[in-house]
Amino acid sequence: MSVQDEFSFINSITPKKYKQPHLVAGIGDDAALYSGNHNVEEIVCIDTMIEEVHFNRQTMRPFHIGYKALASNISDIAAMGGVPNFYLVSIAIPKHWSDSELLEIYNGMEALADRYQMDLIGGDTVSSKHSLVITVTVIGRVHKGKHLLRKNAKADDIVFVTGSLGDSAAGLELLLKNGVDFNFSKDEQALITRHQLPEPKVEIGEILAKYPRVALNDVSDGIASELNEVASASDVTIVIEAEKLPKSDPITSFSEDKQLHWMLNGGEDYELVGTVSKENWLKIKKECEQKNYSITKIGYVIEGPAQVLIKQGDHMKLLQKQGFNHFK
Amino acid sequence: MSVQDEFSFINSITPKKYKQPHLVAGIGDDAALYSGNHNVEEIVCIDTMIEEVHFNRQTMRPFHIGYKALASNISDIAAMGGVPNFYLVSIAIPKHWSDSELLEIYNGMEALADRYQMDLIGGDTVSSKHSLVITVTVIGRVHKGKHLLRKNAKADDIVFVTGSLGDSAAGLELLLKNGVDFNFSKDEQALITRHQLPEPKVEIGEILAKYPRVALNDVSDGIASELNEVASASDVTIVIEAEKLPKSDPITSFSEDKQLHWMLNGGEDYELVGTVSKENWLKIKKECEQKNYSITKIGYVIEGPAQVLIKQGDHMKLLQKQGFNHFK
Repeated sequence: MSVQDEFSFINSITPKKYKQPHLVAGIGDDAALYSGNHNVEEIVCIDTMIEEVHFNRQTMRPFHIGYKALASNISDIAAMGGVPNFYLVSIAIPKHWSDSELLEIYNGMEALADRYQMDLIGGDTVSSKHSLVITVTVIGRVHKGKHLLRKNAKADDIVFVTGSLGDSAAGLELLLKNGVDFNFSKDEQALITRHQLPEPKVEIGEILAKYPRVALNDVSDGIASELNEVASASDVTIVIEAEKLPKSDPITSFSEDKQLHWMLNGGEDYELVGTVSKENWLKIKKECEQKNYSITKIGYVIEGPAQVLIKQGDHMKLLQKQGFNHFK
Repeated sequence: MSVQDEFSFINSITPKKYKQPHLVAGIGDDAALYSGNHNVEEIVCIDTMIEEVHFNRQTMRPFHIGYKALASNISDIAAMGGVPNFYLVSIAIPKHWSDSELLEIYNGMEALADRYQMDLIGGDTVSSKHSLVITVTVIGRVHKGKHLLRKNAKADDIVFVTGSLGDSAAGLELLLKNGVDFNFSKDEQALITRHQLPEPKVEIGEILAKYPRVALNDVSDGIASELNEVASASDVTIVIEAEKLPKSDPITSFSEDKQLHWMLNGGEDYELVGTVSKENWLKIKKECEQKNYSITKIGYVIEGPAQVLIKQGDHMKLLQKQGFNHFK
């Protein structure tokens, strides 16, 4: 371990100033403090990324690792209709990581945090025998009663997704094949960037939270998995149409089979997928178009058992949860 | 890895009902939600424990590991004068841990959580190649403006500590020597219990939070380290007297040298140590005595550079920070 001193390392990552007005005390005591507020609900989530399991040095630079660890948590806050305020980082560091690489991890987080005026308010720094382990907790807020849950879907709702699907998985394939140092084409680089530096859709989540009864999930495991969660929580049947799934230009250089597989099961796109009533769909679509946010209707909700069906041409088949299971 | 299915494992640890009235949504969506409140400050902290670094199977059973991971975080909330409400658990699981051992880890947390009506409201469950890693985030509350910071100490204050010091380190020595299955004497078992099942001092923290200008820290790294943090944050000199340090009966079977070393630097006792004005000291002492909570005056604060001095007989010497540094 090249970190000479735990305390000087902590000192080097401690913010010099904080941005959130409701922060009372950040790093430097036993815990962080922030003022409560009757008009909001606090949101909290936690995510862990492990070297050799979630990332490795062949596909991600230290900056990307930090950025992505925070992005996946911010995406969870966005999926509740909220905005992120604070983050805490617990990091377990093995000997083979240098000081400058560790600082790059924190720089990656800070780059994304700055966009939302988020403050780093706590953490833990420990040594590890084998792999780097990074656990991020994010705390955010949503206006009281305006949170968006998966259980809100009803028959006749529209199913929508933001942005394009499958790019992160396509980028990962390119990285696994060529490594992070390869001289990629512009199109390839676009896919790789979606894998290394995914953009959580906080602003679109905020728009959605203004409308009643939106059911929402973020695309961390692929829409097959995410929509099954919505169908299950809402006890409805969700029907999506394969031809309507939004895809980027660069992904079309891969085979049709790969494209469809990645769009359904690739995951880590950190788009938002959900359902909304027909009347509100038109309003949301208009508001997103005005702000240049991409959002696409991909299907509809019907009464029936908790399941997801996919229509491809004239065929309709069951779409099963195929997200990454850590223990299978 | 014997956990057959990540989802069924998560299901088995998801609470059947929640206790905190301000919880809006627990486990089962992208993030947890709880109502804000103008009259409080929210408190948050995070701690990681790693197999082979913070614990091993020779000294801790799975139940103890879970219990202690939560206890160390609750102790941080207590050191702010707050009460704990919620916890989130991120766990990275290698193949050599069985389902029943993992459930025992969660049972250990639940046993302690129940005492404070705390709810498990989120987490992450991932696979690990080598060591078990458990990261716990705890969220608590303190009445608005009543939090206790390390920077509150002033000249003429009394220095106090709760309970007795060094027992956890003594218990660890017994465990390292004999292993967790040894047939310990009653006195030895008392020390071991303090290492395996430490009791955070939430109730005493609540009493202290009623008084103005208490400086407080919890004893995770040993009072040498904790009091240096108070001295440094408050820019005062703290003087403690070796003869006044509270010790348990069982620890007196060890040499005087070991006793003093453990009382100053052992750590993991999870007592509270701090300073308070002379007039409030008498009130606090009385209130603690009435409730049978042990609290002892161990020194005083004087003007001077940020340092801790220890008086032993007629000698006075500098007491340096000697807490566990992960990277030295």
